[in-house]
Amino acid sequence: MSGKRPTTRKEIGDVAMGFDDDAGSAGIVRTRHVTFDRPGQELPLEGGGVLAPFTLAYETYGSLNERRDNAILVTHALSGNAHVAGRHDVADKRPGWWDMLIGPGKGLDTDRYFVICANVIGGCGGSTGPSSVDPATGRPFGTDFPMITIKDMVNAQVRLLDHLGVDKLLAAVGGSMGGMQVLELAVSHPDRTHLCVPMATAARQPTMAIAFNEVGRQAIMADPDWQGGHYYGGRSPAKGLSVARMVGHITYLSDEAMEEKFGRRLQDIHDYTFTFSADFEVESYLRYQGLSFTNRFDANTYLYITRALDYFDLTRRHGTLVKAFEAVKARFLVMGFSSDWLHPPYQLKEIVSALRATQRHVSYYEVESHFGHDAFLLEREKMEGIIAAFLSSGSKSYHR
Amino acid sequence: MSGKRPTTRKEIGDVAMGFDDDAGSAGIVRTRHVTFDRPGQELPLEGGGVLAPFTLAYETYGSLNERRDNAILVTHALSGNAHVAGRHDVADKRPGWWDMLIGPGKGLDTDRYFVICANVIGGCGGSTGPSSVDPATGRPFGTDFPMITIKDMVNAQVRLLDHLGVDKLLAAVGGSMGGMQVLELAVSHPDRTHLCVPMATAARQPTMAIAFNEVGRQAIMADPDWQGGHYYGGRSPAKGLSVARMVGHITYLSDEAMEEKFGRRLQDIHDYTFTFSADFEVESYLRYQGLSFTNRFDANTYLYITRALDYFDLTRRHGTLVKAFEAVKARFLVMGFSSDWLHPPYQLKEIVSALRATQRHVSYYEVESHFGHDAFLLEREKMEGIIAAFLSSGSKSYHR
Repeated sequence: MSGKRPTTRKEIGDVAMGFDDDAGSAGIVRTRHVTFDRPGQELPLEGGGVLAPFTLAYETYGSLNERRDNAILVTHALSGNAHVAGRHDVADKRPGWWDMLIGPGKGLDTDRYFVICANVIGGCGGSTGPSSVDPATGRPFGTDFPMITIKDMVNAQVRLLDHLGVDKLLAAVGGSMGGMQVLELAVSHPDRTHLCVPMATAARQPTMAIAFNEVGRQAIMADPDWQGGHYYGGRSPAKGLSVARMVGHITYLSDEAMEEKFGRRLQDIHDYTFTFSADFEVESYLRYQGLSFTNRFDANTYLYITRALDYFDLTRRHGTLVKAFEAVKARFLVMGFSSDWLHPPYQLKEIVSALRATQRHVSYYEVESHFGHDAFLLEREKMEGIIAAFLSSGSKSYHR
Repeated sequence: MSGKRPTTRKEIGDVAMGFDDDAGSAGIVRTRHVTFDRPGQELPLEGGGVLAPFTLAYETYGSLNERRDNAILVTHALSGNAHVAGRHDVADKRPGWWDMLIGPGKGLDTDRYFVICANVIGGCGGSTGPSSVDPATGRPFGTDFPMITIKDMVNAQVRLLDHLGVDKLLAAVGGSMGGMQVLELAVSHPDRTHLCVPMATAARQPTMAIAFNEVGRQAIMADPDWQGGHYYGGRSPAKGLSVARMVGHITYLSDEAMEEKFGRRLQDIHDYTFTFSADFEVESYLRYQGLSFTNRFDANTYLYITRALDYFDLTRRHGTLVKAFEAVKARFLVMGFSSDWLHPPYQLKEIVSALRATQRHVSYYEVESHFGHDAFLLEREKMEGIIAAFLSSGSKSYHR
C-alpha cells in the first residue's frame, strides 16, 4: 500500500517553507475508497436523518502489525483531505498535507506505525458530501445534503476503523478541526483509542471563529453563481469561495508572520499604482490563495464543514467540559502554539484543566512559534520529537 | 451654530453601551457644506490629478474665541462622518459618533473649545467622493473618482481650517484612520496644530489590516451589482459591502469582547437548527451590522477609503519614521488600547519611540480595555480625564 523510494532534496525542495526533508518520504500512495452500504452500516446523523450509503476516501501508510496495536488515525482540518503524506505520483509537485510528520523515521514513523487518514464526510476529497450524487435523485446533493457535525465525521471514521480491523487505535492525532475530531473520538468512543494528540484546537468553537466562518458563508451565499447550492453542472461560486478562503487564510497567520512574510512590500512594482490592483504582495498572495482554492475545493463543502466547526461544543451535551471528559479513557498530549490567535493557547489549556480535573493522564506542550494557527502544519522540528516520544511511550502502556 | 438644550437621561438612554451621559449634550447641530471652487483652492492629489471643485461637509461645536486659539479638529475613522457629537434633531435616536467625549463639560469641552469635524474627501457623508456628480460628465464619478490618500484628506481639511479662520489648531484628535490624519497633519503641516492626539492607529498601515481590507474590497468587487463601480441609479452592491463590513466588524472587537458579548448563545432558538440560518447571536449581529451599513454607506467609498488606509505609510516619503517626524512641532499624547489587535499597542509605541528620538514632547497612555479596536469609541471614563488634562495643559503653551 505504501512503497518506499529514495527521496532526494531536489524532489522535495518545493515542499512548503523549505525545510530539508532528510528523513524520507512515505513514498507513492493512492487514495482508496470504501462504501458502507450494508444493513447496519448506515450513519445516523446528529442533526437528524441518516446517511446511507456513504463512501469514505482514505489513505494508509505503513502496515498494521499482527497485534493490531500500531494504528494511528490522523484527522484533517477544514481544507484537508485523505492525502496526508507521500505522493500520488513521482511527478507530484507536492506531497500530502502533513508529509513533514509522516513517513519512515518521522514523528509518525511509518516503519513502526500504521497511519490512516480519511476525508471527512461532507468533504469534497472523495468522501460523500454535497457534491456527491444523491442516490434518491441521481443528481448531486447540493444543499439537500444533510447537515453534518464533528461527531458525525468521527462516527464515519469509526466505521472505517471497523473496516480496517482496528478495534483500538494507538493514537488519534489532529490539528484545528482535526483536533476537534480527536476530542470527540475520546469522548464518544472512549474504547477506540489509547492516545490522543489534539492541537491548535478547542473544546468548543470560539465566538470569533464562528464570526469569521459566517463571513465566509455569507460571501459564498452572496455569489449569484451559488444558486442556493445547486450549481453543479454550471458555474461554481468561485468568487464567493475565494473571498471565504482569503478570510480564512488571514486567520491562519499571525500578525508577526504577515509582517515578516509580506510586510508592505509591493508586488513587481516600484511605486503605488493608485488603482485597486494588487499593489501589495499580501494582496497578490491572498488573491492567489483564494483563486487556487476554488480549483480544488467545493463551495458547499466549505459551508457544511464550517457549520460543523461552529456547532462543535463538547460542553453542550454534557453541561461542562469536566463532565464531557468523565467517559474519557485515553491519555492526552495537548499542543498549543504561542501565536495562534484562532485557537490561542488558553483554549488548549481549558482542555488540559478539564482533563486534569477528571484525573486523566494529560500533558500540555506549547510550541513557541510566530506562524500563528498554521504553525501545526509548519513547525516540524518543534513538534516531531515530542509527538514521537509520546507515541513511543504510549505504545508500552497500550492494552485492549 | 451649536445651540444647547437641557439633556435628560431618558433622552440619551439609547446611546451606545448605555453609560450615563450626565455631562450634557452638544445639543442640536447641523451639517454644513463648503465648496472650494475658487482659483488657488484646487486640491492636487498625491496619486496624480487635481480635485476641483470639491465640497467638504463639516460640523462645529462651541465657539471660536477671539484669539482663535481654542479650535480642535476631530478626524474620523473609516465609517465615520462629520456628525461627531450632538443630534441633528430632537427626535434623533443616536447622537454623533463620538458624543461621549464632545459636549459641554466633556473631555473635548465645547464650553471651552471650538470643535470641528469634517467628512473626509472620498467619503459619502456629504464631502466630495465617488458618489458625487462629476462636473465633467454630469454623472456620479463612480470609479472614475481619483484615488485619494490620507494626505489628500488632510490637505482638504486644511482648506477648511483656512475657511474657518483657524490658522493653528489647539489640537487634532482622532482614532484609527483619524489617528493617521492627525499624524499626517503633524508631519505635512507642522505649523497648523499645537497638540496631537492620535489613538488606536499606526504610522503605517500594518500588513494584516491591508489583508482584511483587501478581503472587503474583493467582496465588493465580486458583487455583480458593483458593475465596475458604476452602479448609481441601479442596485448597489449591498451583498458585497455587507460582507466587507462584517469582516471589518470582527477586527474592531477583541476575542474577549466577543466571548463576553455573544459567546455561543443562540438567537431566539433553544437548539441548533442544523441549517445555515443565523443560529448564533454573533451571526445575527454581524448580518445586521452588514445589512444596516449598506443603508448608510457607499460601496465605492469603502473601496477608496480602505485603499487610502493601506497606502498610508509615513516612512515611505521620508525613509524612516524618525526622519518623517523631524519636521514635527506639535506635542503629542499617543493612546493605545490593550486589546486592540488591529492596531496593537506596539504600533503606537513605534510612534512614541520615533517622536522621542527626535526630542519631541510626547506622552504615551495605554488604556486597559477588553473592547479591542472599538475601545476608542467606548472607553469614555478611561480616556476623558487624560485627554482633558492634556488639552488644558497644552492651552497654556499654545503660541502662534
